[in-house]
Amino acid sequence: MNFAKKTTEGQAFVANTVNNTFPGALKSETLSNAVERILAVHGYSKEKSILATALCCDEVNRELEDGLREKFGSNFSMGGLAGFPFSGVTSFGAMAHHIPTDGSCIVVYGPHVGVDMTGVVGKVNRRGRDGSGACCGSACAAHAYVQQVRSGERSEAAPSYDNIDAQQMWIQKTLLDYGDRLEKADDGAVELPHALFDCQDNFMKRIVEKACGEVAGEGKIALLGGIQINTPDGVAEYFLPKKFQLLNNKGELVSDLLADLQGHVHAQNSDEVLDKVDNVCEIISNVCA
Amino acid sequence: MNFAKKTTEGQAFVANTVNNTFPGALKSETLSNAVERILAVHGYSKEKSILATALCCDEVNRELEDGLREKFGSNFSMGGLAGFPFSGVTSFGAMAHHIPTDGSCIVVYGPHVGVDMTGVVGKVNRRGRDGSGACCGSACAAHAYVQQVRSGERSEAAPSYDNIDAQQMWIQKTLLDYGDRLEKADDGAVELPHALFDCQDNFMKRIVEKACGEVAGEGKIALLGGIQINTPDGVAEYFLPKKFQLLNNKGELVSDLLADLQGHVHAQNSDEVLDKVDNVCEIISNVCA
Repeated sequence: MNFAKKTTEGQAFVANTVNNTFPGALKSETLSNAVERILAVHGYSKEKSILATALCCDEVNRELEDGLREKFGSNFSMGGLAGFPFSGVTSFGAMAHHIPTDGSCIVVYGPHVGVDMTGVVGKVNRRGRDGSGACCGSACAAHAYVQQVRSGERSEAAPSYDNIDAQQMWIQKTLLDYGDRLEKADDGAVELPHALFDCQDNFMKRIVEKACGEVAGEGKIALLGGIQINTPDGVAEYFLPKKFQLLNNKGELVSDLLADLQGHVHAQNSDEVLDKVDNVCEIISNVCA
Repeated sequence: MNFAKKTTEGQAFVANTVNNTFPGALKSETLSNAVERILAVHGYSKEKSILATALCCDEVNRELEDGLREKFGSNFSMGGLAGFPFSGVTSFGAMAHHIPTDGSCIVVYGPHVGVDMTGVVGKVNRRGRDGSGACCGSACAAHAYVQQVRSGERSEAAPSYDNIDAQQMWIQKTLLDYGDRLEKADDGAVELPHALFDCQDNFMKRIVEKACGEVAGEGKIALLGGIQINTPDGVAEYFLPKKFQLLNNKGELVSDLLADLQGHVHAQNSDEVLDKVDNVCEIISNVCA
């Protein structure tokens, strides 16, 4: 599979790998269009809403943000390494105070994982570089740390109070609690973002519990959590939604919107079947030419 | 001064306040154009470079990033609350591994401060909201904490090991060391971003010392540090450059580029004089009409 040629078959291969490995994943464009439509019913608009994102530092994650920014305006960026919303309670409160009057907020969060041109999960081909590299790098390093500690190859790192690398230290230590789950999984590289999502979802839940009251009046909090899936150039980026809830400013569930969002995968699949038929037609006409 | 009318006088008033309060500040557009030209001499191009930013979470800071992204591509985001590069050594190393082959990186970092439509420093008018609000909110909260601890109004917060608000706790504790300097300043709100810059510059220096070797071969590290100045809609965003250095991957200074960059303020000032003459002409012609 020489994806460097950017053949339609190569692109379809990566897309198939994404769909088979992360069933229910939506193309980023499908996602942002669907989210816009679903939230419009609940009074969201670009003028009346603010977007917060908690996605990893990695530059490959800006594309999803850009799509969401078209719908909801410039993003308040809560994310740190691996996507953890490390800027925390204070950042959520600040963001809430930036919501346009009588408006609401949407918070998009989660870890990310690459799928490279040869279908390897946990790597991605990067702009201007040969081969593919770790994606998410922070998560892969933490996973390696957990494996080494569990095998006895290294001992647990002593706690560090130096802030210049505290995020990675904390992620590694925290991921140790998921060591069994990662080890027992059929494919640790696929399980890794799912484990990180659970951990980040809990982190975000605690932030929202503490700071939801900072949203004024009837303002809502839409929480969209999932796994961002990065792909090589020429293939759409994907996002696997795992949670999509609308809360009030007491943190109470107003509406669970996940099924609505998941419904859009069927429309997307129909489009992909049509694309594949187009590809087959192209191949046949090339053969016949 | 009713800036809400977005009069040219109102806009000029805010721009004047920025220029008088932060002499040497460049419009974001002037900055990104100048940085592109200066770094091109050292082999930087969009294809061969990666951009990292360590700017505050606040959504008003995306505009500067967008301008830089046009020149250098999608940004690796190292920033947390108040702009501190909290994602640290691991994030710098990851970013270095994403540099296009034989390329270099540029790291743009610093705190931010608003100037609102009435000329108040430390506030800004926000999209869809009446009045103006704290900017940078995290920095203002930390400043208030320092003032309260020093006056005896509150005691120092006990160290917290809960990560859901660790960044703000750390910023507040760290800013205590700058309490004298802030108290003695003519205007604490103006001194605040300068103090934060010094603190962040030291933070970044320690990260680069530890991780510069991750940049491959002849790759360079351009460090552009300063204070980002946010303004109301209709007025350019500004950036006061305080450091612009080119380092090799041993962390050694290759070239100090700050004077080159500062030179661009003269060209900008000439443009502003021309704009003001245009405004005067417009006012005269309105009066005469």
